[in-house]
Amino acid sequence: MVVQPDKEALIKRLNRIEGQVRGVNKMVAEDRYCVDILNQVSALQSALDAVAMLLLENHTHGCMQGAIKSGKGDEAIDELMAVVRKFAR
Amino acid sequence: MVVQPDKEALIKRLNRIEGQVRGVNKMVAEDRYCVDILNQVSALQSALDAVAMLLLENHTHGCMQGAIKSGKGDEAIDELMAVVRKFAR
Amino acid sequence: MVVQPDKEALIKRLNRIEGQVRGVNKMVAEDRYCVDILNQVSALQSALDAVAMLLLENHTHGCMQGAIKSGKGDEAIDELMAVVRKFAR
Amino acid sequence: MVVQPDKEALIKRLNRIEGQVRGVNKMVAEDRYCVDILNQVSALQSALDAVAMLLLENHTHGCMQGAIKSGKGDEAIDELMAVVRKFAR
Repeated sequence: MVVQPDKEALIKRLNRIEGQVRGVNKMVAEDRYCVDILNQVSALQSALDAVAMLLLENHTHGCMQGAIKSGKGDEAIDELMAVVRKFAR
Repeated sequence: MVVQPDKEALIKRLNRIEGQVRGVNKMVAEDRYCVDILNQVSALQSALDAVAMLLLENHTHGCMQGAIKSGKGDEAIDELMAVVRKFAR
Repeated sequence: MVVQPDKEALIKRLNRIEGQVRGVNKMVAEDRYCVDILNQVSALQSALDAVAMLLLENHTHGCMQGAIKSGKGDEAIDELMAVVRKFAR
Repeated sequence: MVVQPDKEALIKRLNRIEGQVRGVNKMVAEDRYCVDILNQVSALQSALDAVAMLLLENHTHGCMQGAIKSGKGDEAIDELMAVVRKFAR
């Protein structure tokens, strides 16, 4: 169990992101111009990227640092790198 | 007005993506392990990337090609490149 | 054969990028701090991204637009999208 | 001073990447087709991405882990996250 340090704020951000997805869906349903929809998808991706970086920051300062201090460093770092590769370009 | 050629399928995909965002939110609320949440965020990003590429494909074959054929090519291409830059690494 | 509209400038930029790669290599050879090397690799990637976007811009305004006007639009757009996918996140 | 664990192999990879940049430059000089050049730039980016991930892996298992064990964890993690953000999408 890991309580995110900024749990309430994080939940609010994800609520907003859910609303952004609904907004994109509505634009498709209303036959809006493709480029306008794509711009909204891009804004949505940026919002998700920011959430991912926050989670990664919390993880490295918290869980990963703790694992390294308690002697399980290499496993924790392999696990981190697997996640970083997913978000890397 | 642009009716996406695969409008119904697209709306279903966006409904599923909305569900994925709710799933991530639930994981945060339930204090789930950061790396598990990050993996779900990554899956969500991939689903959104696929939607973006589909919209871009529809746009280039449809609107952009039409604009070029009707003599408004350079504006349409500038508009395209502005979007491509947003999704480029 | 496609003469890039900004051929000389492009060649100069690629010469500079070649120098940046040599600089990164020298840092590894001289046992420099990993984070300093990574920052140089990141600067190098940005320089290459900019070159890629310039080539893509030249291609869309030039070859692709020409192909669409001469009736070979769908092939040209499929080819474009295959490239865009490679540079998309 | 940080000796990369796979220093010789890394230097060889960077030599090959330098050759790839020269290859791209030659393609521009010889007026080759834009899409062919872009495909080579994309291959080059992938080779650089792989080098970046290797350096990051060496850094996290080596320097960063060491810093955390010697009580300088938060600075080391802030430094890591600043680099990860540069390579994140």
